[in-house]
Amino acid sequence: MSKRPTLTTIQEAARRIEGFVVHTPVMRCPHLEQTLGAEIFLKCENFQTMGAFKQRGACNAVLSLDDDAIRRGVATHSSGNHGAALALAASRRHVPAFVVMPQDSARVKIEAVERYGATVIECGTGLASREETLDKVLDETGATLVHPYNDYAVIAGQGTAALELLSEVPDLDLLVAPVGGGGLMSGCAIAAKGLRPGIRLVGAEPSGADDAFRSLRGGKLIQQQTPNTVADGLRACLGDKTFAIIQDLIDDIVLVEEQEIATAMGYVLEHMKILIEPSAGVAVAPLRDGTVDVRGKRVGVILTGGNVDRETLIQMLQADQD
Amino acid sequence: MSKRPTLTTIQEAARRIEGFVVHTPVMRCPHLEQTLGAEIFLKCENFQTMGAFKQRGACNAVLSLDDDAIRRGVATHSSGNHGAALALAASRRHVPAFVVMPQDSARVKIEAVERYGATVIECGTGLASREETLDKVLDETGATLVHPYNDYAVIAGQGTAALELLSEVPDLDLLVAPVGGGGLMSGCAIAAKGLRPGIRLVGAEPSGADDAFRSLRGGKLIQQQTPNTVADGLRACLGDKTFAIIQDLIDDIVLVEEQEIATAMGYVLEHMKILIEPSAGVAVAPLRDGTVDVRGKRVGVILTGGNVDRETLIQMLQADQD
Repeated sequence: MSKRPTLTTIQEAARRIEGFVVHTPVMRCPHLEQTLGAEIFLKCENFQTMGAFKQRGACNAVLSLDDDAIRRGVATHSSGNHGAALALAASRRHVPAFVVMPQDSARVKIEAVERYGATVIECGTGLASREETLDKVLDETGATLVHPYNDYAVIAGQGTAALELLSEVPDLDLLVAPVGGGGLMSGCAIAAKGLRPGIRLVGAEPSGADDAFRSLRGGKLIQQQTPNTVADGLRACLGDKTFAIIQDLIDDIVLVEEQEIATAMGYVLEHMKILIEPSAGVAVAPLRDGTVDVRGKRVGVILTGGNVDRETLIQMLQADQD
Repeated sequence: MSKRPTLTTIQEAARRIEGFVVHTPVMRCPHLEQTLGAEIFLKCENFQTMGAFKQRGACNAVLSLDDDAIRRGVATHSSGNHGAALALAASRRHVPAFVVMPQDSARVKIEAVERYGATVIECGTGLASREETLDKVLDETGATLVHPYNDYAVIAGQGTAALELLSEVPDLDLLVAPVGGGGLMSGCAIAAKGLRPGIRLVGAEPSGADDAFRSLRGGKLIQQQTPNTVADGLRACLGDKTFAIIQDLIDDIVLVEEQEIATAMGYVLEHMKILIEPSAGVAVAPLRDGTVDVRGKRVGVILTGGNVDRETLIQMLQADQD
């Protein structure tokens, strides 16, 4: 897909990936709503196939490619969810998937990608090594690159999350989603502003990976060299495509401290009885601490996923307890 | 209610409590189903009001009492969920609730009961002190006793969980539920056998609180004097009413070790992204370890609730990790 997605593109993506992704539930939390004096609609992508929204974008990208382009398979670099999502999507079209992963990736993540039938190619840590290895893989295999977020088909796929949410709850005043590489935020922004032009869009970002915040303030793409946050899904930097969309459509980016992420995860676990990953906690935190004023409003929140390894979960619950 | 509930009684209870309780979702877990080669339908009472099925029974009991009987309020003894459920139900009829709680109850549980407007009367630990204190409270206040489980209206209310499950999935081969005082199991047994006489009913009990197992084997009510299990909801013993129903209708009781409870909770958290309390883990464990053979069957499981304090949760996640 060579053109920036529109609402129509995202609606087409929704039809394309139907049956391959879960139409996830929208949940409410009476305790949160009473505390904040607002109506809060939480889109539960933690119940998505493989536990995260990433399945939407990878699936749309793989299903969008024509037979010739996909004949030699697809390839990407990923430290986790996108690699697994791409592997699963490729297996559904019976083509190979090649996933470049840093050698220090969690063993369970590498195994998950392999379980879906992908070939994992390990690389050094750091973006340079990833990209160099990926280039080599693309050369050798002739596979088609599917970037984790800076790809219009991926962006359109992620946008289907907001499309579903607004189909169920059309009259939202505000939509909050976390920002990492920006694929989710930009796709959801196009869908939400397309369906409801007056909606306010707020991105939430960890203070320790604030490239979107600084890029928006600075008016140009500023890379985050050393992201430092427990929200592993948000350590990536915006790409040129996602930055351009976010710059056009987003009303504000708010920053979230690490302690707030743990507290938000613990709160959701206790009051909603659902497990969300740290990245999803980043979207909940600014509501709870008042950074985003929601009183009297109808607010949508994208809970990106529920993939958190056991050790991190225990650490976060302990951090919230202290 | 002075007569043993029937399917009709439970259907009436369902109509009575409609709007006061959540019609909870039935969830599936593809990973569990693939592993076991079975279709598993999990009734998610962790999403019930106040996080547990107890709301059903307390609500039915309070709404069943006539105005005269309830004028002076309701009373019970409880170490947690039933007390809070009764307090909430009483507040909806604008009558007082008196809840006798052991003085070593978790502070958060006492506060929860008080938050719903009940008067908490603290007592010593042990059943004798509880009952003595409750007798005194009943004398002094003229309130009506609503026993946590050995009460036909409570039993009928709990049975609505199975009624909902079988309305949604009528052709179950097997239903598994945990057994503590037996209110849930006996109510669900009446509903399930009433709707589907051929269904097999299995109760799951912690090895450290195996009074139902021993009572059924012995053919008479055998009290468990020193229950020892993390599943706090299952430390109670059957009463005469729940024992009689369970003896009539249940096909088997299986025992679950403590480690299996932690493993089941961890599994559900990881693969379903939902939080269940230890008592609910007791119902999942015997499927996972093969104690109950489910291959090729359609199986219903009642996930009783999701109330687990933070410290216990961390301990259980750590136990599962080791």
